[in-house]
Amino acid sequence: MDNSQAKISALRDVMNDHGLDGYIVPKADEFQGEFVAPYAERLQWLTEFTGSAGVAIVLQDQACVMSDGRYTLQLGAQVDRDVFDVADSVKVGVHGWLNEHANKGIVVGYDPMLFTPEQIARIEKQASDIVLKSVPGNLVDKIWYDQPEKPKGQVVVFEEHIAGTGVAEKKAAIAEKVRKHKAQACILTMPDSVSWLLNIRGSDINYIPSVLSYAVVYAEDDKPVTWITDQDKVSADVMSALEGHVEISGWECFENFQSGTVMLDFSTAPVWFKRDLEKRQVEVKNVKDPCVKPKATKTLSEYEAIKKAHIADGVAVVKFLQWLDENAADGEITELDAEAKLLECRQQHPAFKGQSFPTIAGYGANGAIVHYRSSAKTNIPLSGGSLFLVDSGGQYYDGQDIAGTTDITRTMAIGQPSEEMIERNTLVLKGHIAVASALFPHGTTGAQVDTLARQPLWAEHLDFAHGTGHGVGCYLAVHEEAASISPRGKSAFEAGMLISNEPGYYKNGEYGIRIENLIYVRETGQENSTGTPMLDFETVSFAPIDRRLIDAKLLDVQEIKWLDTYHADVYEKLSPHLDEKERGWLQQQTKPIA
Amino acid sequence: MDNSQAKISALRDVMNDHGLDGYIVPKADEFQGEFVAPYAERLQWLTEFTGSAGVAIVLQDQACVMSDGRYTLQLGAQVDRDVFDVADSVKVGVHGWLNEHANKGIVVGYDPMLFTPEQIARIEKQASDIVLKSVPGNLVDKIWYDQPEKPKGQVVVFEEHIAGTGVAEKKAAIAEKVRKHKAQACILTMPDSVSWLLNIRGSDINYIPSVLSYAVVYAEDDKPVTWITDQDKVSADVMSALEGHVEISGWECFENFQSGTVMLDFSTAPVWFKRDLEKRQVEVKNVKDPCVKPKATKTLSEYEAIKKAHIADGVAVVKFLQWLDENAADGEITELDAEAKLLECRQQHPAFKGQSFPTIAGYGANGAIVHYRSSAKTNIPLSGGSLFLVDSGGQYYDGQDIAGTTDITRTMAIGQPSEEMIERNTLVLKGHIAVASALFPHGTTGAQVDTLARQPLWAEHLDFAHGTGHGVGCYLAVHEEAASISPRGKSAFEAGMLISNEPGYYKNGEYGIRIENLIYVRETGQENSTGTPMLDFETVSFAPIDRRLIDAKLLDVQEIKWLDTYHADVYEKLSPHLDEKERGWLQQQTKPIA
Repeated sequence: MDNSQAKISALRDVMNDHGLDGYIVPKADEFQGEFVAPYAERLQWLTEFTGSAGVAIVLQDQACVMSDGRYTLQLGAQVDRDVFDVADSVKVGVHGWLNEHANKGIVVGYDPMLFTPEQIARIEKQASDIVLKSVPGNLVDKIWYDQPEKPKGQVVVFEEHIAGTGVAEKKAAIAEKVRKHKAQACILTMPDSVSWLLNIRGSDINYIPSVLSYAVVYAEDDKPVTWITDQDKVSADVMSALEGHVEISGWECFENFQSGTVMLDFSTAPVWFKRDLEKRQVEVKNVKDPCVKPKATKTLSEYEAIKKAHIADGVAVVKFLQWLDENAADGEITELDAEAKLLECRQQHPAFKGQSFPTIAGYGANGAIVHYRSSAKTNIPLSGGSLFLVDSGGQYYDGQDIAGTTDITRTMAIGQPSEEMIERNTLVLKGHIAVASALFPHGTTGAQVDTLARQPLWAEHLDFAHGTGHGVGCYLAVHEEAASISPRGKSAFEAGMLISNEPGYYKNGEYGIRIENLIYVRETGQENSTGTPMLDFETVSFAPIDRRLIDAKLLDVQEIKWLDTYHADVYEKLSPHLDEKERGWLQQQTKPIA
Repeated sequence: MDNSQAKISALRDVMNDHGLDGYIVPKADEFQGEFVAPYAERLQWLTEFTGSAGVAIVLQDQACVMSDGRYTLQLGAQVDRDVFDVADSVKVGVHGWLNEHANKGIVVGYDPMLFTPEQIARIEKQASDIVLKSVPGNLVDKIWYDQPEKPKGQVVVFEEHIAGTGVAEKKAAIAEKVRKHKAQACILTMPDSVSWLLNIRGSDINYIPSVLSYAVVYAEDDKPVTWITDQDKVSADVMSALEGHVEISGWECFENFQSGTVMLDFSTAPVWFKRDLEKRQVEVKNVKDPCVKPKATKTLSEYEAIKKAHIADGVAVVKFLQWLDENAADGEITELDAEAKLLECRQQHPAFKGQSFPTIAGYGANGAIVHYRSSAKTNIPLSGGSLFLVDSGGQYYDGQDIAGTTDITRTMAIGQPSEEMIERNTLVLKGHIAVASALFPHGTTGAQVDTLARQPLWAEHLDFAHGTGHGVGCYLAVHEEAASISPRGKSAFEAGMLISNEPGYYKNGEYGIRIENLIYVRETGQENSTGTPMLDFETVSFAPIDRRLIDAKLLDVQEIKWLDTYHADVYEKLSPHLDEKERGWLQQQTKPIA
């Protein structure tokens, strides 16, 4: 059974055994995170499709794999078109495909651990002619003979002197929210939230050092948190650090709920919890995961550790950029070479624990693909006259004074850039500076600040089709909720939030530009004329912005001042950690532009 | 019975007769509009309070009048404090006052025609210990012996060649929305919506030429609109214009609904409708009034008529400003003199039908009161050294080619302004220009554009505590929903919307600044780099912006270009309609600043 035809055929047999006319296989594990462990790569195993988002629908006589617009080409190329129809998951969607292809009244099964209540409600509402059936026990697992084991990454303590807040205090704050919602407990299903709450980190999946596990926080202050995790992952040292605050349990803990009210986040939790609790007359209240907001606002000690992680990362990026500048000109370096070199530069730092996401290193036309990932098939040499966009990040932690997740994008000229490239890079830079230097009142939302990044582009009929910024964790996920800068960003900024500032411009088939630093929300300590306290951003990422791509004539006095000050900071902070050649190079790159 | 004590005592007797422990008297009529006719000034009659928003709560042994922060001083001064407690309607609210002052379980009555379902639901939720009781037939009316009659303003036809869309077409569009919501009918309770739908205007209330009436649109295309209005107000000519599309009915038409689904806007309709329909097993579906959005996007012929109304208004404003400039210097003109003069200038145009709202003419510290209205008590002479803020507008209609509602604010230096005044006025102007010259993609919301108005102020720790812009009707209400520019503005701009652009700055106790023009949303006909069509604004208000209050050094090249181009337009459009002295003055005021 090594091809899709055989696998689908086997899956259909299992579907038959369960009385199902169809079955849905998503690219998701039971934690709804951005990255999944190998055991959960069911969609890929079944269909060969390797994209980061997608879903398959298997009926008895037909099947479909869908993903969003980013993966249209890849999807068509990877899946066996004799077996699978392909569709756009945004334009068509699961409901759309079912409405078109499924007979009325057929029964379509799904694994209740892999879908949220909101996802199921949406499909049920929009594909009203089919019967969706929750089928516990994943059907793909039943035929996946060589399915990898679930990960058992050892749990480590995230030191309290870095976290800044102890488990007892975090637990008390969440318990208070549970009481406020008149519930008896809150079920946390996001590994990020559990890791934040318990001041722990792990190594279950690539890119995010969270511990794949669930937790329950109770209304009573004296009741320990129930932590639903594999006991093997937890050393005696970790248990002793958590002593008094946490008790490990298996799934049986959920059976203790036989009445009353429990909080669950319907946008991220497996629908299984809702069904299971409601079966026992427990009222399940849809409440946003209460850890999301406190996790987003970093403590002062986290902030200090994050700043150190960014210095370490900046040093690696400068070493990489210097190497690139020295070697790229002759056209012998490829995207993948550069990616490898960048990783090597990061690995030189002892606190570097791994990348925070797969590096996007796109040259020329590849740079215009927003979510590009270079591969043997797409890899090209950096042969002069275009732009090289590199978006990458690292996870840093030393248990002493360094902890943080970085995310930085630089766009470099390889050879002689065109006038247009310089003009558009300068417009993107203007947007980046407008955000970085913004001063704004409490209550201002991501949608309001987003305008600052886009206005210089809008004025020239340009724009970019992604948000300006996302929240970033502290040695956790590089994409965090709660804070964002985007046209639809509804939440207000709060001091302590760490967000990316990454406007861009993409010319299809030619080149891409993105300039990204992380920014930290600060109280300015001053009020404005209406009596509202003001906030601003502190840029915490350090690496030079390519001067060859800046037209100083398009910058105003304030913008030039920002750039020169930023570059002076870059030199001051990074030069002590560089060798002489690198330092000399950095000095050239960070000279005042005025 | 000529004082509050006697009136309240009489009201308490009527409350007793109805078995009520309390009664709520709002500043609202059965149309929830911004202005009410004299018969509906129940709050003022009962309490003497003349503010534009407020509510009284009368219990058997105590009573309260509340309004928002704008009216704190006025409220305390106007009401009899031996009879009424006073409170803040935003900070305390009806529920807050009841929770504090009412005994548990008491029965508080209200007139179901004067409250919306949302208002009642909010009070019921937040004041959970009292029993709210709907009492048909207003209790104040029962004791108000000399209550004025309901207005009987004659209805006139709003010519179809100006409206651009006939009643049949508008009716068909709304009927389609009714079918989309699977309802049998939609009840329209906003006079603006009814007037827009039926292409009619009236004269029932000051400032808004809408016809106070309700209407019902049915799902069936061949069924005429039921218009619930006083037959006396409608001439045979008007009826013949509406022939085939509309039938006049009394309230009995609502009794025809005995089952099925009816659409009602819970944010604006009297709660009476919901109760009455639900009593007869009709499902009442809360749907936003479907006329709001099409009414907000003006037709091309409305746009042409609006532009002409703004030229007429600009001429009046220039005449006023020239007069002010010539006469204000010696300190003998007062705010009320200026207000009268401005009205007189507007009245010179034959199409002028009245003001679109009460003029705000505030000198010095009075200008810092955002919703100021000058009165004999507050009136002051314009004696040199400060700023005079005048916010005013007119209603124009000639049945030929002029129709529109204007709203314009200018801030003038009287004598020598301070450096600070000039700097802050220039910052407000920068915000105004940033909005006026914005180019932005489809989908952009009011919150996104709002940032452009505030950023120059934010950068100096300044701000203004009101929205940047509101929708404006076409010879209808000066405040329209659907379009807005504000930190919380969620709707996207659409071509045809007419919106105010009015950033400001207010220094408490010293002076106020506001620069307001109306702007019209246009398709640019061009797409941006992501393939999204772009929109921009066309400024349609014309009057000079005081050059004495502009520091050209704070403006960049683009801003100066905008200002000079705008002023050249002002001169070109208005000068043909001015006498020689006025034209000479305008030429001076509109010279290039560069």
